[in-house]
Amino acid sequence: MIVLHHCVSARSLRPLWMLEELGLPYELRMLPFPPRALARDYLQENPLGTVPLLVDGATRMTESAAMCQYLAARHSAGVLDVPVDDAAFGAYLNWLHMSDATLTFPQTLVLRYTHFEPPERLQPQVAADYARWFLARLRAVDAALHNAEYLCAGRFTAADVAVGYALLLAQHLGLSPQFPPAVAAYWRRLQARPAYQRALQVQQQAALDQGVPTTPSPDIRP
Amino acid sequence: MIVLHHCVSARSLRPLWMLEELGLPYELRMLPFPPRALARDYLQENPLGTVPLLVDGATRMTESAAMCQYLAARHSAGVLDVPVDDAAFGAYLNWLHMSDATLTFPQTLVLRYTHFEPPERLQPQVAADYARWFLARLRAVDAALHNAEYLCAGRFTAADVAVGYALLLAQHLGLSPQFPPAVAAYWRRLQARPAYQRALQVQQQAALDQGVPTTPSPDIRP
Repeated sequence: MIVLHHCVSARSLRPLWMLEELGLPYELRMLPFPPRALARDYLQENPLGTVPLLVDGATRMTESAAMCQYLAARHSAGVLDVPVDDAAFGAYLNWLHMSDATLTFPQTLVLRYTHFEPPERLQPQVAADYARWFLARLRAVDAALHNAEYLCAGRFTAADVAVGYALLLAQHLGLSPQFPPAVAAYWRRLQARPAYQRALQVQQQAALDQGVPTTPSPDIRP
Repeated sequence: MIVLHHCVSARSLRPLWMLEELGLPYELRMLPFPPRALARDYLQENPLGTVPLLVDGATRMTESAAMCQYLAARHSAGVLDVPVDDAAFGAYLNWLHMSDATLTFPQTLVLRYTHFEPPERLQPQVAADYARWFLARLRAVDAALHNAEYLCAGRFTAADVAVGYALLLAQHLGLSPQFPPAVAAYWRRLQARPAYQRALQVQQQAALDQGVPTTPSPDIRP
């Protein structure tokens, strides 16, 4: 049984959404945010103290976009992955990596230096620098969607889940009014997916059942 | 013929090193840093203005860690990649993603806010926050190397190239004296590889031949 360690609406929503897309059995272990301060026992599971942690037999993973690719390749039998010999393989990998390294990390700077630091350590200039940085890179998403419903391969793939999370985070940060029209329409399409809606419901119910806060908690702490 | 657009010692060194490991024919197009300011024509090739850009027939990629995986899977016939059915597949993907999203991006904050911004926009606090953030995450690399020569699968893979670049950047930033001993020894092993040394020589000669500066130029500009 796959085990996923998760904080509400953190990057770990990516593999949770994937698990719902694929209809796989899994156990969801909710953590308060940030776990390295509020759930010290978790450090025995993941010494970095970060979420997500995904455990599938002997496989242990901590990178959310890598989990999307892993689950698609190992558990979807060609449904959500793009195989090596497909013409879209390079684009697929590029979107998976871009989703976190280029489209999520800059937003964690915005979150950290406008919300999570104590007042004397807030950095409005840095938050503005990286909001602009994110929106500049989002032009690549916009360009890909001008003649397509999804990012690559002419169909919904794990890359859409990975990039979709970056759009959810942008919405939490108040950046979604600046989405170009094609990105805004794409984000509406993603949110309409039953598996996405189930993932949101599952995390809320699991948070209630397991006694952790139900508010969003992206993991950006040092 | 694969075409790689590159600035000296930028993230584009990852695919350059991979191309040398694999012995593939390629064309290296050098750019001054930052290209979006100093090589405006490049925006027609890559509207984001970032390096790397790798072009392989109809495939166009901009994410350096994705390129490592792509070149290994498409062009190395099992030598530097880890196939889906291998027990180390999840670990392999995790290291590839961690190399950029978790081990490189924080360092670009250090570089930007200690070197590249004008004096009134330098941010020593942010640079210190993310130097510490990088070194904390580097503990995962250290743990993986306590009983192994390489990160996963019991052999050198594309994941070592991807993570190796993060160690080179740390060395440029003066962080390498803080590497744990196992990481320092690993980094010495990587630097001893003939393909790594060829990549450094090739970029220097290409910079001279094509008339761009030969100094390191990681692409961190917004």
